[in-house]
Amino acid sequence: MSDRLTIALDAMGGDSAPRVVVDGAEMACERFPEVDFLMYGREDEVGPLLDRSERLKAVTTLIHTDDVVRSGDKPSVALRAGRKSSMRLAINAVQDGNASGVVSAGNTGALMAMAKFVLKTLPGVDRPAIASFFPTLRGESVMLDLGANLNCDADNIVDFAVMGNVFARCVLGILQPSYGILNVGSEDIKGHEYLQDASAILRRANLPGEFVGFVEGDDIAKGSVDVIVTDGFTGNIALKTAEGTAKLINEYVRQTFKSSLFAGIGYVLARSAMRKLRKRVDPRVYNGAIFLGLNGIAVKSHGGTDALGFANAIGVAIDMANHGVIEKIQADFSTLTRQEPEAQAAAV
Amino acid sequence: MSDRLTIALDAMGGDSAPRVVVDGAEMACERFPEVDFLMYGREDEVGPLLDRSERLKAVTTLIHTDDVVRSGDKPSVALRAGRKSSMRLAINAVQDGNASGVVSAGNTGALMAMAKFVLKTLPGVDRPAIASFFPTLRGESVMLDLGANLNCDADNIVDFAVMGNVFARCVLGILQPSYGILNVGSEDIKGHEYLQDASAILRRANLPGEFVGFVEGDDIAKGSVDVIVTDGFTGNIALKTAEGTAKLINEYVRQTFKSSLFAGIGYVLARSAMRKLRKRVDPRVYNGAIFLGLNGIAVKSHGGTDALGFANAIGVAIDMANHGVIEKIQADFSTLTRQEPEAQAAAV
Repeated sequence: MSDRLTIALDAMGGDSAPRVVVDGAEMACERFPEVDFLMYGREDEVGPLLDRSERLKAVTTLIHTDDVVRSGDKPSVALRAGRKSSMRLAINAVQDGNASGVVSAGNTGALMAMAKFVLKTLPGVDRPAIASFFPTLRGESVMLDLGANLNCDADNIVDFAVMGNVFARCVLGILQPSYGILNVGSEDIKGHEYLQDASAILRRANLPGEFVGFVEGDDIAKGSVDVIVTDGFTGNIALKTAEGTAKLINEYVRQTFKSSLFAGIGYVLARSAMRKLRKRVDPRVYNGAIFLGLNGIAVKSHGGTDALGFANAIGVAIDMANHGVIEKIQADFSTLTRQEPEAQAAAV
Repeated sequence: MSDRLTIALDAMGGDSAPRVVVDGAEMACERFPEVDFLMYGREDEVGPLLDRSERLKAVTTLIHTDDVVRSGDKPSVALRAGRKSSMRLAINAVQDGNASGVVSAGNTGALMAMAKFVLKTLPGVDRPAIASFFPTLRGESVMLDLGANLNCDADNIVDFAVMGNVFARCVLGILQPSYGILNVGSEDIKGHEYLQDASAILRRANLPGEFVGFVEGDDIAKGSVDVIVTDGFTGNIALKTAEGTAKLINEYVRQTFKSSLFAGIGYVLARSAMRKLRKRVDPRVYNGAIFLGLNGIAVKSHGGTDALGFANAIGVAIDMANHGVIEKIQADFSTLTRQEPEAQAAAV
């Protein structure tokens, strides 16, 4: 590819920043040689790390700023006081047209508040949501919201369903996606009232694909639907519970093969298959959550990930940029809202 | 043991009732020869199943009733109209002193409503909660509420923390349990306001053990705390998400060993270790959720479990009865509420 792409990175965001960000960018620039980086952060910390990789240094512009959004900062405070923070400057780069997307492993709330303020939402979107892919028995599903909106009402849930539907069509390429609302039971009478209301609206809304009603926690990994819709509090708990469970079972598998000589020999024979297994259940492979509904590409990396995980989050941003996802979502969203006046009316 | 114990079973509750209930009871009566059963359900359906096992038939009294609580019944309707249901009669047996505990795989909401109405709550308990054990990297934790109370306020969360604390001391034998509230971040400013309020109350309350504040979804499997406190909606989603993830990874492991000849030979060598692994991650082993805060033993089995899972739920009820858990919890709870007037005052 001759066209080059620029991604803006918040070098100071995440538990082990800037080391993980720089190492992740180095991995990403091997994988995506057509990508340039704008890196925002403290020159005295980031510079020496960059000096270790000529390849990365050649495609990276480091822009110094002292200011950093901390993980404990309230979004409102970060928005007011963090105008020169590495996170904010990286987002500005997208708005100014200097970068095609931004990736940060920093404070989620602050990143969403700043990205919403700077990039604005797409027409028709009230509240952006955080979406991510999940591995399932059937392949991959997308779930949203994963933490942007803790308190939701029926209209928010309906909006997330529309965004998730559009995302599944544009990004997953599923023309008729199935989608459902996460709840404590599949019967219509179950769960919070606002979920029942949202379900009633979606039954009438007639979006493309199939609305199956309510799904339960175990339907996520089953892949019962292409899109799982939930509020940000529940989505975040589900995401992290799934990650924790995967790690626990990985550890059980490891212990299993250490438990006897025969098992150890068995492991050696199965080693290459086991490597594939590890890769399949590695949460780093699924790192990189998408801020959906913004007029620009913003990807949130797990704060505690390592270089491989961060490189994957960069990969998500690159993928979205290469596929022109924002434009597709915008076009699809406006068609959908034009075609479905009753859904739109009910959701306003 | 010469003392015999009686457990009441709702033969008609669960997706594959009464077959799974009868088969589960048969497995349980092999494991616990000192236990008698009172089985409530339709004689024409349950009778023929009982006839297949002499051993079970010898320790079982079948009490006929036509009436059944359905999985879609609202709790309030079941409570009013289901006075002669198999579920209700099984609960009555505990209240009347004819059984030491009741096990049902039926409608959770109806079971909780009936159990609360018939058995009453322990002094000081406003809302009973559903608690269950979770396997963790460190051993076992207990989590509550798993679905009895979907809408909670700060006081409910505080009550669940006290009950969980007492349960960890009485049942897990941990004198100084660690406990935390499930949230979307560990910082004090995170999550719903009522969780922040509950955390502030628990920081002042000075219960035995250590209150760590907020924990996240991945802390469940890590075993970061002995007791995880949450509302019933979030707890149910977390429980089922963990179950679904465990099943997904089990399937990945199975596929891994089928993927090549070497891996297949490796599996054969590791077979006995793999059997142990399967047992460790088998959700049936953890089947049997406890209704905590009631003046009587009531255990809810997963509606979709099989005979092994139902036998394990019976095992939970027997275990609780043998350990005099209700009396211990009652004593501990009253000591705790006497010792901690400010926690009690704040929680009322």
